[in-house]
Amino acid sequence: MNTSNSTEHARRLDALLERMREHELGLVLLFDRDNIRYFTGFRLNRVVASILAISPEEGPTYIVAKLDLNRAKRDGWIERVIPFPEDTPNYLDALRPLFGNSGKRIGVEKDSLTLSQAEYLRGLSSEKSEFVDVRAITSELRAIKSDEEIACLRRAAEIASNVMELVQGAIRPGVREIELSSWTEYLIGQEGAEGASFEPFFMSGENAWLPQRISSQKVLAEGELALLDMGAIYDGYCSDITRTFAIGDISPEQEQIFRVAREAQQAGIEAIRPGVRACDVDAAARTVIEDAGFGEYFPHLTGHGIGISSHEMPIADRGVETILQSSMVLTVEPGIYLPGIGAARVEDMVVVTPLGCEVLTSAPRGLTGKKE
Amino acid sequence: MNTSNSTEHARRLDALLERMREHELGLVLLFDRDNIRYFTGFRLNRVVASILAISPEEGPTYIVAKLDLNRAKRDGWIERVIPFPEDTPNYLDALRPLFGNSGKRIGVEKDSLTLSQAEYLRGLSSEKSEFVDVRAITSELRAIKSDEEIACLRRAAEIASNVMELVQGAIRPGVREIELSSWTEYLIGQEGAEGASFEPFFMSGENAWLPQRISSQKVLAEGELALLDMGAIYDGYCSDITRTFAIGDISPEQEQIFRVAREAQQAGIEAIRPGVRACDVDAAARTVIEDAGFGEYFPHLTGHGIGISSHEMPIADRGVETILQSSMVLTVEPGIYLPGIGAARVEDMVVVTPLGCEVLTSAPRGLTGKKE
Repeated sequence: MNTSNSTEHARRLDALLERMREHELGLVLLFDRDNIRYFTGFRLNRVVASILAISPEEGPTYIVAKLDLNRAKRDGWIERVIPFPEDTPNYLDALRPLFGNSGKRIGVEKDSLTLSQAEYLRGLSSEKSEFVDVRAITSELRAIKSDEEIACLRRAAEIASNVMELVQGAIRPGVREIELSSWTEYLIGQEGAEGASFEPFFMSGENAWLPQRISSQKVLAEGELALLDMGAIYDGYCSDITRTFAIGDISPEQEQIFRVAREAQQAGIEAIRPGVRACDVDAAARTVIEDAGFGEYFPHLTGHGIGISSHEMPIADRGVETILQSSMVLTVEPGIYLPGIGAARVEDMVVVTPLGCEVLTSAPRGLTGKKE
Repeated sequence: MNTSNSTEHARRLDALLERMREHELGLVLLFDRDNIRYFTGFRLNRVVASILAISPEEGPTYIVAKLDLNRAKRDGWIERVIPFPEDTPNYLDALRPLFGNSGKRIGVEKDSLTLSQAEYLRGLSSEKSEFVDVRAITSELRAIKSDEEIACLRRAAEIASNVMELVQGAIRPGVREIELSSWTEYLIGQEGAEGASFEPFFMSGENAWLPQRISSQKVLAEGELALLDMGAIYDGYCSDITRTFAIGDISPEQEQIFRVAREAQQAGIEAIRPGVRACDVDAAARTVIEDAGFGEYFPHLTGHGIGISSHEMPIADRGVETILQSSMVLTVEPGIYLPGIGAARVEDMVVVTPLGCEVLTSAPRGLTGKKE
């Protein structure tokens, strides 16, 4: 994203500043790259660190590696961009001027800040300062998507759907799993994404029911069920989609687990509307699988929120009381992993609408790749 | 890797246990995925968490997600594999039985453990327990590669070299950066790697001298210098290689910065042998660039160690006193980023040998892709 979106990002930061006032936070230090992209819109190489510091008095300060300074100044909307210092023993010294001498309540992401960073920040701050976890605040802000975010997620879902249809043409006995997942990576770039949401994986036969969750050198064989799970990033926003394929002729049992997984997914999607709990969506899908006698072979959640992170709030799983709201975006992906038989999962992304939900991913869902 | 390599991995764990005795550590808890792969050999999906707990009395315990349990038991060499608990409020409760009541010195990676994990572990442990950073220990163990590791790194370097030569054929004016980096991802899978060491990036023209460090939708234009930085993973081990390309005809100034960057790299490689300091390698390369008048346009380190992590010990940069030893593996990659003109960097991987070093990457280094 670029300066044309600065209004959107400034609005997001204003929402955070409001929460900071409510929670009496004198400073927030964000280290999590997805949180930083949410507020800055700035894209960094995935392995590169930066810090976004937000003070109610001084506004945002963006601290980046020297190598990223020129670009952050050119492309970012935040005016105060400074480099990590090179003449001090620790790069976190860049934050020293922000702490001051007064005891402040300082917001950090406790599941992102490392222990060594925390110990160093503790040394920079007044003894009276208290570190407070702001993850719940940022997760809640990010869970409800703006129209601009939904437009990006819609495009990311379209790209993933297009790629899924294209990859399908290459699936046949004798091809290796890794060939199909690397072909997926290629197509993700060709179709206009900035990259893959996560390393795509294609699992077939035993690898699928284990489930392996990585692509291997295994060759696809006649009579197997196989899964491709992948997603694309468009302007920072992730998509996530899974389809199940039959490699040649399959057995009635294999057809059955696919049919049940697909029906469970449909039940999950139909349960989604504002006001229901995330666990109700899980229950709707899980009941279909349990009623068919496969309950113990569905060992994961039914769905997860998606946005700048490929997994974020809300989580649709047992015991999760989160209330779904309009403009949340989540996946629905119940699956069955039956040893000796195969695995089946159909995953789509939906946006919660005032009356229910709209499915954003569109690639054919049938086992053969044909429209149902 | 699989059970056939269990001897190698058990040997690595024995070396850690010896350090634990020296440092009087009663327990080590590893959360860093690369450290865990080093000791277990087990490959997980990149976004999935696991914990390796090592006790001098009980040996290793590997704690994985329920979804990964079957495969970890089948493919791993560690006998005690347990799943994260699902019926407790926090998955770290799996570690509770390991702490005991006595105060222990507990080794953790302070730059990998998050603050929330640290706070929870603190609650599980006796008040007399002390958390000690073991990063220096694991980094030192991993810096010297075994013959088996060097064989993997050699293969990873070969794959990257092959891919670099193949991508070169697709580089021409009018192609988008992202097309070339996604083509690189495809070829990495085709050539036998398990995946890419990091998201490959192709930067051209202004994007290269910024430097952008990500691929964009920008189209390659006549008269630009362009860089591709990428690597492959073979059996857990990373490679890393960069080449610079001329898009059509380039100017004498562009040729000059390429020639200087290449000479600096050669000087760095020639400085490598057991007993020299890492900063001496940096100085050898940096002096060439400074003497040519481009010192301020070389804003990064000269090289970094590489193994299971794409960046690890030793770091070849100013002020780093690490003494190079035989069987260390590192990159050499000085670069020049000259605004308005272009960027040039040639990066190769070398293994330190008793008398000097051997270059592991082999793709043609000339601007046009022809052998020099």
